Amino acid sequence: MDQQLHFITFATADLDAASAFYTAGLGWKPLMDVPGEILFFQVAPGVVLGMFDADKFRQDLNDSSAAPGVSGVTLSHNVGSAAEVSATIEKLSTAGGTVLKPAQAGAFGGIFHGHVKDPNGIVWEIAHNPGWRIEDDGTVVLR
Amino acid sequence: MDQQLHFITFATADLDAASAFYTAGLGWKPLMDVPGEILFFQVAPGVVLGMFDADKFRQDLNDSSAAPGVSGVTLSHNVGSAAEVSATIEKLSTAGGTVLKPAQAGAFGGIFHGHVKDPNGIVWEIAHNPGWRIEDDGTVVLR
Repeated sequence: MDQQLHFITFATADLDAASAFYTAGLGWKPLMDVPGEILFFQVAPGVVLGMFDADKFRQDLNDSSAAPGVSGVTLSHNVGSAAEVSATIEKLSTAGGTVLKPAQAGAFGGIFHGHVKDPNGIVWEIAHNPGWRIEDDGTVVLR
Repeated sequence: MDQQLHFITFATADLDAASAFYTAGLGWKPLMDVPGEILFFQVAPGVVLGMFDADKFRQDLNDSSAAPGVSGVTLSHNVGSAAEVSATIEKLSTAGGTVLKPAQAGAFGGIFHGHVKDPNGIVWEIAHNPGWRIEDDGTVVLR
């Protein structure tokens, strides 16, 4: 199996709230929006973030043991400075997100960051990480 | 906030099992491996999958309400044919994954797919989706 991710899909209890947060609030452009079923955004070269109606998600997964809600995962969005971390967290909060951790120095990795939960429980870390960069060919470098 | 994802990080109860599954089992190359703390793999241009010690994940998130374990999310890896779906699921199973849904026609989106859970609860969908492609510039097309 190639070392390659194509979709990240979340069980989404309230698709209207997802649309309000990402499209109206953050100005993101959907790749596809099937009302009542799924909302897709492209979030990297070749990578799509999907928000899938929670009932259909569980039906599709065929795993009756799956707990409702999202847990155990964070998505990170990196920005260029500590000030931009704070500003982005403020923007997410204004759009309807819940701040879990205000902007602060991180305990791991020498970063400055904070966390915001979207209306459906997806947690975004907003981070400034001086030891991280993406090269022109898409290669990620960590030091 | 730009429409851009940089890291996907999972609470990981057993980092050794993660390493055995992805590195030894699937042949993936870590971007960084900090034993007892975090294991990173690059999985798309500019995108890193992180498996973060579960206790440290919860400490870092500062969210005491976070449930243990991973739920409400799937990662998808697309392949070129229905036969390749079956072969990839077999490979994941051999590497130590648990098959949740054997290869079959999907209920949504005209795809052929199946789901496998990794040793730490991350669910991979292996899919053949004839309506999906990535253009040379990384743009995803769905129809």
